[in-house]
Amino acid sequence: TYQMANQVDEIGIVRGLAWTSVGGDTLQIEVNVMPGKGEILLTGQMGDVMKESARTGISYIRSISRNHGIADDFFEEHDIHIHIPEGAVPKDGPSAGITMATAMFSAVTEQKVRADIAMTGEITLRGRVLPIGGLKEKLLAAKSAGIRTVLIPGENEKDVGELSAEITKGLQILPVSHMNEVLEQALVKEI
Amino acid sequence: TYQMANQVDEIGIVRGLAWTSVGGDTLQIEVNVMPGKGEILLTGQMGDVMKESARTGISYIRSISRNHGIADDFFEEHDIHIHIPEGAVPKDGPSAGITMATAMFSAVTEQKVRADIAMTGEITLRGRVLPIGGLKEKLLAAKSAGIRTVLIPGENEKDVGELSAEITKGLQILPVSHMNEVLEQALVKEI
Amino acid sequence: TYQMANQVDEIGIVRGLAWTSVGGDTLQIEVNVMPGKGEILLTGQMGDVMKESARTGISYIRSISRNHGIADDFFEEHDIHIHIPEGAVPKDGPSAGITMATAMFSAVTEQKVRADIAMTGEITLRGRVLPIGGLKEKLLAAKSAGIRTVLIPGENEKDVGELSAEITKGLQILPVSHMNEVLEQALVKEI
Amino acid sequence: TYQMANQVDEIGIVRGLAWTSVGGDTLQIEVNVMPGKGEILLTGQMGDVMKESARTGISYIRSISRNHGIADDFFEEHDIHIHIPEGAVPKDGPSAGITMATAMFSAVTEQKVRADIAMTGEITLRGRVLPIGGLKEKLLAAKSAGIRTVLIPGENEKDVGELSAEITKGLQILPVSHMNEVLEQALVKEI
Amino acid sequence: TYQMANQVDEIGIVRGLAWTSVGGDTLQIEVNVMPGKGEILLTGQMGDVMKESARTGISYIRSISRNHGIADDFFEEHDIHIHIPEGAVPKDGPSAGITMATAMFSAVTEQKVRADIAMTGEITLRGRVLPIGGLKEKLLAAKSAGIRTVLIPGENEKDVGELSAEITKGLQILPVSHMNEVLEQALVKEI
Amino acid sequence: TYQMANQVDEIGIVRGLAWTSVGGDTLQIEVNVMPGKGEILLTGQMGDVMKESARTGISYIRSISRNHGIADDFFEEHDIHIHIPEGAVPKDGPSAGITMATAMFSAVTEQKVRADIAMTGEITLRGRVLPIGGLKEKLLAAKSAGIRTVLIPGENEKDVGELSAEITKGLQILPVSHMNEVLEQALVKEI
Ligand SMILES: [Ca+2]
Ligand SMILES: [Ca+2]
Ligand SMILES: [Ca+2]
Ligand SMILES: [Ca+2]
Ligand SMILES: [Ca+2]
Ligand SMILES: [Ca+2]
Ligand SMILES: [Ca+2]
Ligand SMILES: [Ca+2]
Ligand SMILES: [Ca+2]
Ligand SMILES: [Ca+2]
Ligand SMILES: [Ca+2]
Ligand SMILES: [Ca+2]
Repeated sequence: TYQMANQVDEIGIVRGLAWTSVGGDTLQIEVNVMPGKGEILLTGQMGDVMKESARTGISYIRSISRNHGIADDFFEEHDIHIHIPEGAVPKDGPSAGITMATAMFSAVTEQKVRADIAMTGEITLRGRVLPIGGLKEKLLAAKSAGIRTVLIPGENEKDVGELSAEITKGLQILPVSHMNEVLEQALVKEI
Repeated sequence: TYQMANQVDEIGIVRGLAWTSVGGDTLQIEVNVMPGKGEILLTGQMGDVMKESARTGISYIRSISRNHGIADDFFEEHDIHIHIPEGAVPKDGPSAGITMATAMFSAVTEQKVRADIAMTGEITLRGRVLPIGGLKEKLLAAKSAGIRTVLIPGENEKDVGELSAEITKGLQILPVSHMNEVLEQALVKEI
Repeated sequence: TYQMANQVDEIGIVRGLAWTSVGGDTLQIEVNVMPGKGEILLTGQMGDVMKESARTGISYIRSISRNHGIADDFFEEHDIHIHIPEGAVPKDGPSAGITMATAMFSAVTEQKVRADIAMTGEITLRGRVLPIGGLKEKLLAAKSAGIRTVLIPGENEKDVGELSAEITKGLQILPVSHMNEVLEQALVKEI
Repeated sequence: TYQMANQVDEIGIVRGLAWTSVGGDTLQIEVNVMPGKGEILLTGQMGDVMKESARTGISYIRSISRNHGIADDFFEEHDIHIHIPEGAVPKDGPSAGITMATAMFSAVTEQKVRADIAMTGEITLRGRVLPIGGLKEKLLAAKSAGIRTVLIPGENEKDVGELSAEITKGLQILPVSHMNEVLEQALVKEI
Repeated sequence: TYQMANQVDEIGIVRGLAWTSVGGDTLQIEVNVMPGKGEILLTGQMGDVMKESARTGISYIRSISRNHGIADDFFEEHDIHIHIPEGAVPKDGPSAGITMATAMFSAVTEQKVRADIAMTGEITLRGRVLPIGGLKEKLLAAKSAGIRTVLIPGENEKDVGELSAEITKGLQILPVSHMNEVLEQALVKEI
Repeated sequence: TYQMANQVDEIGIVRGLAWTSVGGDTLQIEVNVMPGKGEILLTGQMGDVMKESARTGISYIRSISRNHGIADDFFEEHDIHIHIPEGAVPKDGPSAGITMATAMFSAVTEQKVRADIAMTGEITLRGRVLPIGGLKEKLLAAKSAGIRTVLIPGENEKDVGELSAEITKGLQILPVSHMNEVLEQALVKEI
């Protein structure tokens, strides 16, 4: 019962893909960066593993921010809030890692994220993208939500070949192994 | 056994709608904003999901405050207390999200909220209004409390058509999809 | 086995009324306000609901303090300790709300509270007084403790009529609907 | 198996009396006040009620300190550690309240406490002394430890008359109702 | 299902060896050191013992940092994040101690760690290396991951002799008794 | 399976004695004192009683530090880490109190501790040494570890006489009643 893809590219919002016992789903991750004192807020009934994944993504983004014109004290002078609707639904696992990190990078650097893209993948502290489960269900959910491009971990590329053409048809499936590639694909190019 | 609607428009008080196993109810959300050091207080036996919903609303209001003449350090220099009477009754769920956010915006900007309005809806970090359950019971409770206008999530509009005219008669039911519309409806216009 | 009423009016001490499975009781709420850094201490084996009620009362008193000549930074420069003897007896519920708030207001403004008064009522963040249970038992306990005047929530006024004259005889029972009225009755008038 | 009474009067050490299922015992409460940042440390396996009692005593001593030449910021510039040997034995209850408060007052004002005195009584935030249980067992333990003077709550005075002369013989039993009296008796007079 | 050894020497990444009920595994420990306020972040579902081991390693590295040109306030002015992928897999025990400490030292001093080395050993606060379990399984895992050199605790040297030549063949196994030796072996020599 | 005694006298390392269901053992307590902000770190799977014992020892050492040339703000400007290897073995009880305090005093004052000494005893906030259990097993463990001198609580002296000469032969057993005596024996005399 999730919404269709955003119609417009936005800052701080990225579409992720979830896999539950009742199938795949999309979840739209929202990030607000506000003047503050370095507080991190994680809401949307995230479990421990997901919260750690968020923290890992935040540290990765912090470590690369200097290269993107962000001041050293930016993260001490701002609060970061990551929220995943729907607020009553428990969520867990590491596979929203690159999605949360992308939404945060977008919010910090004020660059828009493509509205027609979705992604799934665990993130490490150094920006590597690790494999995830439930690829088939996630791709089906992305398709139903009107997504055109899906980023998946490089190590899951081999699993795509095993899926029926019916599932992958019409979807651009891009394997990524590092956050560099994720940001390259997901951020809207300024002209 | 809840009170009838306020007779006068007030700052920092908004009427919400609850749905329990014994039917609908109204709950009057109160917000105080005090000189302080950025502390958030949430009382009234709120559960985890409701507390996260309150935090999400606070972050949303913070993110739009600059556009309403609020200084950047306002939230570091004030404490915000959100309380929901009756203090001994446990409350939970995300559907008071827009109500708490409206009460907070009213308190922060010192604008009055209409006494004859009630509302229900989950809020996201970017101000989207998500659908809720128990619409029928909530509308009945609003009616009994003398409310004239009820704001409901846009995605619940389809559910109104299924209700008997007896329930909706005499109630102005306004679907809203974003906090912009909520504030537009709920705040008293200064003349 | 509680003490009789204070013989002298004091600052920061107010008589409350409790209702337990073994009948009513009085409890003398004590507040100390000390030079400090804004810490709140709540002791006397208070349960969660009672602690939230204390916090609600504190925020209410903070919100009206400016009108009573208290400096804006008073609450950042002082610690507030609320204690309810007897320390080993667990206490809970919201009905000591107005009592705790009155004791705190007395301590903050250094105004004496009448020694011959007792009170019961839930407080809201905006100072409204909400109804309580166990009225009969509480009035009996007040009487036994030598109390002359009892403040009760306005919404409990209807319950007084149902009590036998034997209980209410000799007690001045004053219904109150807002903390304004509570403070008006409880504080000793300076001449 | 507790030690005999101190041979010399000391600062920050006061003898308390405990009552357990296996009889009475004495426990020597120790307080250190150190240059610091206002931290409170409570060790010796104290239970919740005892910790709250310690906090209540600390606040009482803070509230009277100004009258004894202690600077307003003393408690922000010092850490206070209250310890009750033996460290592995769980302890709880409010009856060590006046003992902990006396040890703290001694440490803060650097006045010695009489080595031949012991005491028992709950303390309130305003310095009242409330009654305790196990009087007989506690007096027996004090006697065995070579104590000469025992302070007991005024409300327990009636219980002394019910004890056999064998128990009370040789003990000076002084009922006290307020910390004023406790400090008057326990502190060594400077000449 | 772990990755093969890094192809290039990196800063802040060290290969550790784990031993679980299903055999040995390698785990790549990542450390980021960021401008901050002295916060320590430990993610990757680490258990209590492993977290304490990380803290022990951090304190050891802090204690030797001055000798390596690190300013005294470095650790108050930076945040340290230690992460162990895969984020959903619980990890515990003290045997990753020297690996975490080496990764942190590399990140703090910005010296690269050899990509073809792995290590296992408990660390103490003074840098001693204590013995570990599961040596055989760990060596097998290192070999499968393409590791050429493995550092093991000196006290485990006796266990190597009991292994079949098939296991140890092709692996350089170096016993170490102190972090000095670990860093000597693991850090890439600048030329 | 513990190591033999240190060959050299060191700063911040003291040999303690433990008593478990499988007999006595030695444990080498390590303390690091680092430039910091007054944080206390206790690692090595210490239980609650042992952690409180560590805190008690820290406060005692703080209280005597001024007499040993340590600046008043030393403990606000340094972090103290106490670690007891082996990190995976749970440890508890108060009998390592004097050992932890000695190691800390050594680290703070940078005085070496004799490598051939071990000790056991509960510490109080004022430096008294209280009796411990398992004396026989602890002495056997000290002997096996090559220790020559063992400090025991004065109140345990009577228990030594009950032990067979076989156990005590070759061990110098020194009863101590106060930390003064412990430090006198354990610290290496500068010449
Ligand atoms: Ca959904
Ligand atoms: Ca966890
Ligand atoms: Ca109700
Ligand atoms: Ca939760
Ligand atoms: Ca009572
Ligand atoms: Ca408690
Ligand atoms: Ca609660
Ligand atoms: Ca005893
Ligand atoms: Ca693996
Ligand atoms: Ca633990
Ligand atoms: Ca051992
Ligand atoms: Ca405990």
